[in-house]
Amino acid sequence: MKFNNKNIYIGQNVKIGKNVKIGDNSVIYDNVTIGDNSIIGNNSIIGEPLQEYYYSKNYNQPITLIGENALIRSNAIIYAGSEIGSNFNTGHFITIRENTTIGNNCIIGTKCDIQGYTTIGNYVRLHSFVVIGQYSNISNYVQIFPFVVLTNDSKPPSNELLGPQLDEYTVIASSTVLLAGIKLGKHCLVGANSVVNKDYDDYSFINGNPAKYVCDVRKLPFFTNGKRHYPWPYNYKKGMPWEEEGYGKWEKSLGND
Amino acid sequence: MKFNNKNIYIGQNVKIGKNVKIGDNSVIYDNVTIGDNSIIGNNSIIGEPLQEYYYSKNYNQPITLIGENALIRSNAIIYAGSEIGSNFNTGHFITIRENTTIGNNCIIGTKCDIQGYTTIGNYVRLHSFVVIGQYSNISNYVQIFPFVVLTNDSKPPSNELLGPQLDEYTVIASSTVLLAGIKLGKHCLVGANSVVNKDYDDYSFINGNPAKYVCDVRKLPFFTNGKRHYPWPYNYKKGMPWEEEGYGKWEKSLGND
Amino acid sequence: MKFNNKNIYIGQNVKIGKNVKIGDNSVIYDNVTIGDNSIIGNNSIIGEPLQEYYYSKNYNQPITLIGENALIRSNAIIYAGSEIGSNFNTGHFITIRENTTIGNNCIIGTKCDIQGYTTIGNYVRLHSFVVIGQYSNISNYVQIFPFVVLTNDSKPPSNELLGPQLDEYTVIASSTVLLAGIKLGKHCLVGANSVVNKDYDDYSFINGNPAKYVCDVRKLPFFTNGKRHYPWPYNYKKGMPWEEEGYGKWEKSLGND
Repeated sequence: MKFNNKNIYIGQNVKIGKNVKIGDNSVIYDNVTIGDNSIIGNNSIIGEPLQEYYYSKNYNQPITLIGENALIRSNAIIYAGSEIGSNFNTGHFITIRENTTIGNNCIIGTKCDIQGYTTIGNYVRLHSFVVIGQYSNISNYVQIFPFVVLTNDSKPPSNELLGPQLDEYTVIASSTVLLAGIKLGKHCLVGANSVVNKDYDDYSFINGNPAKYVCDVRKLPFFTNGKRHYPWPYNYKKGMPWEEEGYGKWEKSLGND
Repeated sequence: MKFNNKNIYIGQNVKIGKNVKIGDNSVIYDNVTIGDNSIIGNNSIIGEPLQEYYYSKNYNQPITLIGENALIRSNAIIYAGSEIGSNFNTGHFITIRENTTIGNNCIIGTKCDIQGYTTIGNYVRLHSFVVIGQYSNISNYVQIFPFVVLTNDSKPPSNELLGPQLDEYTVIASSTVLLAGIKLGKHCLVGANSVVNKDYDDYSFINGNPAKYVCDVRKLPFFTNGKRHYPWPYNYKKGMPWEEEGYGKWEKSLGND
Repeated sequence: MKFNNKNIYIGQNVKIGKNVKIGDNSVIYDNVTIGDNSIIGNNSIIGEPLQEYYYSKNYNQPITLIGENALIRSNAIIYAGSEIGSNFNTGHFITIRENTTIGNNCIIGTKCDIQGYTTIGNYVRLHSFVVIGQYSNISNYVQIFPFVVLTNDSKPPSNELLGPQLDEYTVIASSTVLLAGIKLGKHCLVGANSVVNKDYDDYSFINGNPAKYVCDVRKLPFFTNGKRHYPWPYNYKKGMPWEEEGYGKWEKSLGND
């Protein structure tokens, strides 16, 4: 049904792993490596050249790495100079600019826009329509919901760009703005439609415009199976490394290493 | 000018009605039915296979139905397992996931993202950039403006997903967040950039973060031709079933059936 | 690497300047003129026909003008009847509807949606995911950040549409809603996630939902190299006409003409 090898373009020095499938009308530019068993949807562009390509005769196309077992849905655009780990899963129409590093087991939702010069850890999930401004730093297990924007300019427009820094397990609910350079600790939860304008420590539940500290997430009256829902890893494990043994055991086993 | 039949792929068991036009570079996968006089824009994908397709040898491609007289603009992606009524009209770059049921005479704006497992009635209009989370329920004549998101997880991330439920004629202004599971009655109006965190009855005008009840929409000081603008169907009829006779007569005629 | 002339469609009465490059799978419809040295990315559609095309035998395709030195990135859709100046630079997946006039040296970010019947001046920058409703008016040097929407219906849905009017140098931070018909003077700054529901004079810093006047932007405690950052043109010149001589000298030289 799919993968009829129609109208596909493959550039030079492209390394395509075993059992990789590439959708119709897709383009793989020079110096791209795609890991084994990966799937690239139709109409995708992998290794999109940087702006310099159009105007410089000395353009050097950076290396682009896509790990094993990727499922990149159709109409993705991933720039040259990005490095993405294994088990990458995306929606449609994603855009990822140059100098983006993404770890393993990440999910990037439909129409997300990652603007480059950004580091994203492992097991991060961006739902659809998330904008990650340049110079952001997103740690492992972070979850971000639709229409959230990580901004990077505290006095727009300026030349001093610095994105937010989100520590592990932090969750940003829909339509929230994270202002330039703010830092959130581990296991924070930011309510929908908030504007976060300063730093918060681990386990903070913050909400509002401007966001204010409400309480420790461990005090939030949300329950799963009769127990406190937060910290959420105890109650949500789909696709997470603790999926089999549960977060408690998994976390202890890490400590024992 | 358009419709040069270049680089079109049609799968197996595809039923294409009379006078259907399909744009260049478009793909119609297996088991899709497209009604008479429909138009599919360039670069579209109809019947996009579900994730299971990539990993299971026993994948069964669900049936996809597109009604008569559709105008689906370019770069649409509509998953297999969606059922859409007649006179469907879309902008560009829409994404509609599996198990979405859409009635007749609906308009879905550019870059909307309907995430599946959702029911949408007749004469619904989504402006551009609307996100409809899974397990939402949108009744007839609802209008939703840009950057609105219908969320479905009240304690993110969790496995207990339930979307909002919007009754007939309700209007959601731009950039509003509807929290998981909330219900709005008929003829409600939600102000721009609100966060709706509980249920409201028919005719409620609500606004703010969190949204609060302001007044009955019939008391709102908006006028058209010297009369109260709300309920809006008395003053807006473009493309609506009461376009010819007016809402008052039309509604009475319904009652007489 | 790029520009392999694969699967390109060029309509009738298309005028393509010298040294223009057109990406694979792109479509240039009838009556389009593209200026010298312009670049059209892959999968783009220039001169997309209006809705009337599908239903009228007497359709006349309007003229579409793209100026010199454009860099239109892949998957752009620009409707027939748009007129765009020189040095136009876009992200990916932009949509620009008919009757849009855009001046010179503008940047339109990834996934922006300009809905037509709109005038945009020179040196305007829209970051990604900006929605410009119909009948908006954006003057020179305006900067708008992600998820901002310029609305045009003060009593939705109605037939009385009027967009906002933004004067020179005004900056709209992320996720803000500008309500229908509001006017902002020169050098205004609107804080992130605001809702602007009335007019404000030159140099206003406004913030909140609903937005309130906070102070003159010239009093804001943001500094660049020890001097007040606002008005920003004194401290930001990248790509601006005062890039070489600085804003102060440049502005004075204008006054002398």
